[in-house]
Amino acid sequence: MSEVREKAALAKQAAAIMNRMTTEQKNAALLAMADALVREHASITSANGLDIKRGRENGTSESLLDRLKLNEQRVAAIADALRLVAGLPDPAGQVLESFDRPNGLQITKISVPLGVIGMIYEARPNVTVDAAGLCLKTGNTVVLRGGSAAIESNRRIIEVLRGALEETALPPDAIQLIEDPNRSSVDEMLKLNGLLDVVIPRGGASLIRNVVDNATVPVIETGAGICHTFVDESADPQMASDIAFNAKVQRPSVCNSMETLLVHEAFAPDHLRLLADRLLAANVEIRGCERTSALIPKAKAVTEEDYATEYNDYILNIRIVNNLDEALAHIGKYGTMHSECIVTGNQANAARFLQEIDAAAVYHNASTRFTDGFEFGYGAEIGISTQKLHARGPMGLPALTTTKFLISGSGQIRG
Amino acid sequence: MSEVREKAALAKQAAAIMNRMTTEQKNAALLAMADALVREHASITSANGLDIKRGRENGTSESLLDRLKLNEQRVAAIADALRLVAGLPDPAGQVLESFDRPNGLQITKISVPLGVIGMIYEARPNVTVDAAGLCLKTGNTVVLRGGSAAIESNRRIIEVLRGALEETALPPDAIQLIEDPNRSSVDEMLKLNGLLDVVIPRGGASLIRNVVDNATVPVIETGAGICHTFVDESADPQMASDIAFNAKVQRPSVCNSMETLLVHEAFAPDHLRLLADRLLAANVEIRGCERTSALIPKAKAVTEEDYATEYNDYILNIRIVNNLDEALAHIGKYGTMHSECIVTGNQANAARFLQEIDAAAVYHNASTRFTDGFEFGYGAEIGISTQKLHARGPMGLPALTTTKFLISGSGQIRG
Repeated sequence: MSEVREKAALAKQAAAIMNRMTTEQKNAALLAMADALVREHASITSANGLDIKRGRENGTSESLLDRLKLNEQRVAAIADALRLVAGLPDPAGQVLESFDRPNGLQITKISVPLGVIGMIYEARPNVTVDAAGLCLKTGNTVVLRGGSAAIESNRRIIEVLRGALEETALPPDAIQLIEDPNRSSVDEMLKLNGLLDVVIPRGGASLIRNVVDNATVPVIETGAGICHTFVDESADPQMASDIAFNAKVQRPSVCNSMETLLVHEAFAPDHLRLLADRLLAANVEIRGCERTSALIPKAKAVTEEDYATEYNDYILNIRIVNNLDEALAHIGKYGTMHSECIVTGNQANAARFLQEIDAAAVYHNASTRFTDGFEFGYGAEIGISTQKLHARGPMGLPALTTTKFLISGSGQIRG
Repeated sequence: MSEVREKAALAKQAAAIMNRMTTEQKNAALLAMADALVREHASITSANGLDIKRGRENGTSESLLDRLKLNEQRVAAIADALRLVAGLPDPAGQVLESFDRPNGLQITKISVPLGVIGMIYEARPNVTVDAAGLCLKTGNTVVLRGGSAAIESNRRIIEVLRGALEETALPPDAIQLIEDPNRSSVDEMLKLNGLLDVVIPRGGASLIRNVVDNATVPVIETGAGICHTFVDESADPQMASDIAFNAKVQRPSVCNSMETLLVHEAFAPDHLRLLADRLLAANVEIRGCERTSALIPKAKAVTEEDYATEYNDYILNIRIVNNLDEALAHIGKYGTMHSECIVTGNQANAARFLQEIDAAAVYHNASTRFTDGFEFGYGAEIGISTQKLHARGPMGLPALTTTKFLISGSGQIRG
């Protein structure tokens, strides 16, 4: 039996035990995991050193190496995140609906763990702990398939976490790490219907595309964000500048940052220049439509492909539009249904934008950067779903549960 | 452009209009559709006659022809079903959550239509109307791909429904029928990401398997049911007999009927014979384990494959088990997570069964045949989901909606 199938089968067996664990038992296990990470920080950072060394030998960039790197402080922060999750409400085992039928049947809809969750992700070893904590908190088991660049770190972290579970009520087999570095182990996970209940990809566009295109196991897609900000005619110039600047510059590498700024033609002549100067001063490259270039000589000519690109970088498309309709049409064509914003003083335009834009999160007068589980007050974030089924937008712990109908009768049969 | 892509694009354009329709406008359209069906019953039954004639020439069985057949009375019943849907609450546009954040952001989570729904189904032309009604009621548009056996009926029905929409606020393009009878039109629908928001298969196991295995568009699986009834030691013999008989015989062709009866070894000697006689008298073929065959000489020997088969027919597996654990293990191995039942007088055993069985609907002392949107009081049924994401078990109208976060601010940016 392959490593993937064997470990997934162990996770499925453990899922039946996890389903019986109380909230207290699960929280105690998360705290034990956090304590163990802190206690074992030296062996974890030592294993991490091997990944860093190999990465450097392979010519990995220093910025990627920094994302991979662990030290005592970072391990402590990862452990603290587990403790925070332990303190959150347990979304499993809740009564969601309860009703009696005229024939006397009592029907109760409860939330239950999804079962076995496959997580496919890239380099950062904190995701290993984070994903394990979120899955266990919600009564699930997890099969982790991290990037090979972090394999030594992940292997040691998982030893520590499984070791910690030995001292708790939870089964150590609830956490499984796939160590096979070949792409074939990912492909095998994607087809593991019957063993995995869901696969969640976390990573770049190509990782997610591979999962979505090839999985027969159900997927929760945490996908790309080509986010827009539309500055309407009546926008407050300072507010528009602050929101656009924040959406682009505060953290360009993430999915809720802005890729294209749409500006009403009546706003642009007086205010776009100043806004563009602020972006240029922050080293943002501007690619503009013809009318934009007429106002901002430093702008390069934008292409169709640019409008359809998630840069995740200090690059911004700017297009001047005739009106709200043209902005809506642009977003309908190029948007990825993630986060979209209108800056306007016109309530009717705001209402139209909020209603007509088909996206997970639609903003009026606020930065798209707020699309985030923590910013929404969920206390944790599984990811940001860009699909429409099951969960949409920032996902808190309830996204890792499903439901079950319990029906109690006294011999009812169907007539 | 292919027929599929062209019609899906029209449906997507219409979805933007549908999203603006009020509950009253949608309900008025459903009533207009119902009236038009009744008014046009003659042309519909006449088109249906062509399907029946061709089916008979092709050697289609009379029972299948009966499912395909329309007459004035059946058309009236189909129209009445639309009127019922018009009378149900609108699940779209509801405020699901609303909260303010410390930074002043006002976040509201509302229910919205999914968008464009692809429906792939088999022969019965009533599904054409049913699916169109459910999708329009929830503010969606629909691309219908019915079985080629009903193509003349479906074509005329869709003409009538679209014609009815001409007189309403709703866009006729909200209903699209794929007429291409080749399997390739199904395959194309399954990959239509960006145009279809979800695909819902309704039909037999092979149709559903094809959709699940090949779709890159998200799927709501309405799947197979290998349902079990476990008769515990303490079960009331008459209740056990009534429930098992009902679960098998009342309508064997449907997914919530029973395929395997599990009987506690302490119950079997005194009561199984009588129950089996009742089933045999109703022309049920029994396939039993060795211990069953010792009690019921007419039972054939059951195989592993039998336990894993959804008969949808007058055939039943019977297995005598040592205890509840063995019953739980059997269901864990062969069940399809649809509907499972325990008949018992022992509350502790009932509680364990309800908690430990991983299925959409788990019954204590009632027939599995109740897993049904109408029996649950939902007033409509999209299907019965056997997946864990988005919706599980009988799906009412809310399963055809997703959510959207609306965030209102006053210039908030992220620090």
